[in-house]
Amino acid sequence: MTQDTLSDLTQRLRQFAAERDWERFHTPKNLAMALTGEAGELAAEFQWLTEAESQDLDPARMARVQQEAADVLLYLVRLADKLGFDLLEAARLKIEHNARNYPAEQVRGSARKYNEY
Amino acid sequence: MTQDTLSDLTQRLRQFAAERDWERFHTPKNLAMALTGEAGELAAEFQWLTEAESQDLDPARMARVQQEAADVLLYLVRLADKLGFDLLEAARLKIEHNARNYPAEQVRGSARKYNEY
Amino acid sequence: MTQDTLSDLTQRLRQFAAERDWERFHTPKNLAMALTGEAGELAAEFQWLTEAESQDLDPARMARVQQEAADVLLYLVRLADKLGFDLLEAARLKIEHNARNYPAEQVRGSARKYNEY
Amino acid sequence: MTQDTLSDLTQRLRQFAAERDWERFHTPKNLAMALTGEAGELAAEFQWLTEAESQDLDPARMARVQQEAADVLLYLVRLADKLGFDLLEAARLKIEHNARNYPAEQVRGSARKYNEY
Repeated sequence: MTQDTLSDLTQRLRQFAAERDWERFHTPKNLAMALTGEAGELAAEFQWLTEAESQDLDPARMARVQQEAADVLLYLVRLADKLGFDLLEAARLKIEHNARNYPAEQVRGSARKYNEY
Repeated sequence: MTQDTLSDLTQRLRQFAAERDWERFHTPKNLAMALTGEAGELAAEFQWLTEAESQDLDPARMARVQQEAADVLLYLVRLADKLGFDLLEAARLKIEHNARNYPAEQVRGSARKYNEY
Repeated sequence: MTQDTLSDLTQRLRQFAAERDWERFHTPKNLAMALTGEAGELAAEFQWLTEAESQDLDPARMARVQQEAADVLLYLVRLADKLGFDLLEAARLKIEHNARNYPAEQVRGSARKYNEY
Repeated sequence: MTQDTLSDLTQRLRQFAAERDWERFHTPKNLAMALTGEAGELAAEFQWLTEAESQDLDPARMARVQQEAADVLLYLVRLADKLGFDLLEAARLKIEHNARNYPAEQVRGSARKYNEY
C-alpha cells in the first residue's frame, strides 16, 4: 500500500501543470469536462461485460481500468485544488449525509428508492 | 485539512454497503456506470458558465460542486476496492506515464497534440 | 408514429433558443458538455438494474428514460445545427464505416475485439 | 440534405445487430452505458478549446466530432428501439414541456435559474 496521500498527489499535479504552462487550460469548467471524458472511457471498459464478468477482469482490461480510474482521480484532485476545497473532507461530509438519508434499518437490501450508497 | 486517507474512506464505504446489504448492487460494472452519472452531474454545474465564471463560484454552486465531486470520489474508491487495486498507486503510475509522454520541454504551453496532463 | 423529422426539430430548437436569447449559451463546447450531463442522467436510470430488469421498465422509469433520451437528442440536434453538419448523414456514414470495420461473417456473436455495434 | 429518417436508421441498426448476433449485448442498460462513453468522447474533443474556438473547428476535429455525434445518435436510436418508444415523439413532448417551464418572456437572456432549453 502506497504511503502517498491526496495532498502529495495535489502537489505533484500542480508542479506538472506549471512545468508545462498548462495552468491556463485547467479552469474548473475544463477540468470537469475532461473528467466526464475519462469517466466515459472507464465505463466503456465495462459496457459489454455482464455484471459477473465485470468482477473478474482479464489482466489487459484490468490494466486499462486502473489507468482510466487514475485519470478520473487526477482530474478530480486537480479540480478540487483549483477550486480550493478539501476533497477528502467533502467525501467525509457526503458519507455522513448519505448515512442520515439512507438509515441502514430502513433501506436494507433495497435499491428501489434509496439508489445511492 | 482532514487527516483521513483513502484507506479510511475505503473502510467506511465497505461498512456502509454491508450495513445496508448493498454489496450485491456494487458490481464493478454498476459502479462504473454510477460514476458516469455523478461525473455528468458535476459537469452540469459548469455547463453554462464561462471559464472565468467557473473560477469564481457562488457559495450555493460551490456546495453542490463539492457534493458532486465527493460522489465521484466515493464511487471511484468503491470501484477500486471491489476490483482490489490501489487507487493512489494507480494515480502515481499514471503521472509517471504522463511525464514520459509529455516531456515538459517539448509540450510547454501547447494543448494541441498533448491535450492531457 | 410522428411525421416530424430531425429538420423540424432543428428549426423548433433554433426558434426556442432565439425567443429566449439563449443562443449565446449554446456554443458547441457548452452543448457537448450539457449532453454529457443528460447522458449521465439517462445512465443513472439503469445503474442498479440488472440487464434483464432494464428490458422491462416500470411506467414511471420508462417515462423518465424517454425524457432523458429526448434531452440527449435535443442537445445533439442543437450541436449539429450550430456546427452546420447533417446529423443523419453523419450517422449514415458511421454505419457504413462500422460495416467495413466489423464484417458480419468475422465478428458474429463476439464482442471481444469488436466491441461496438 | 439526406432524405433518411430516424425510422430508416432504426431499421438499418436492427439489421446490423442481427447480422452480427449482437442483439444479446444490446440490452437497454448496456446501450445507455455505451452512450455515456460516446458522449464522453464527444466532450473530449472540446475540453481544452475556448468557447470561441469550439465554434470554428479545424477539418480534422470537425470530422471526429461528426463521428462521435453519430455514435451518440446510433446508440440513442438503438436504445429507443429496444425499449419500444418513438424518439422524435419523446423529443417533441420534451420541447413542449420545456416551453411551459421556461416561458420566453420570463427567462429571456438568463441561464441562471433556467439553465436548460
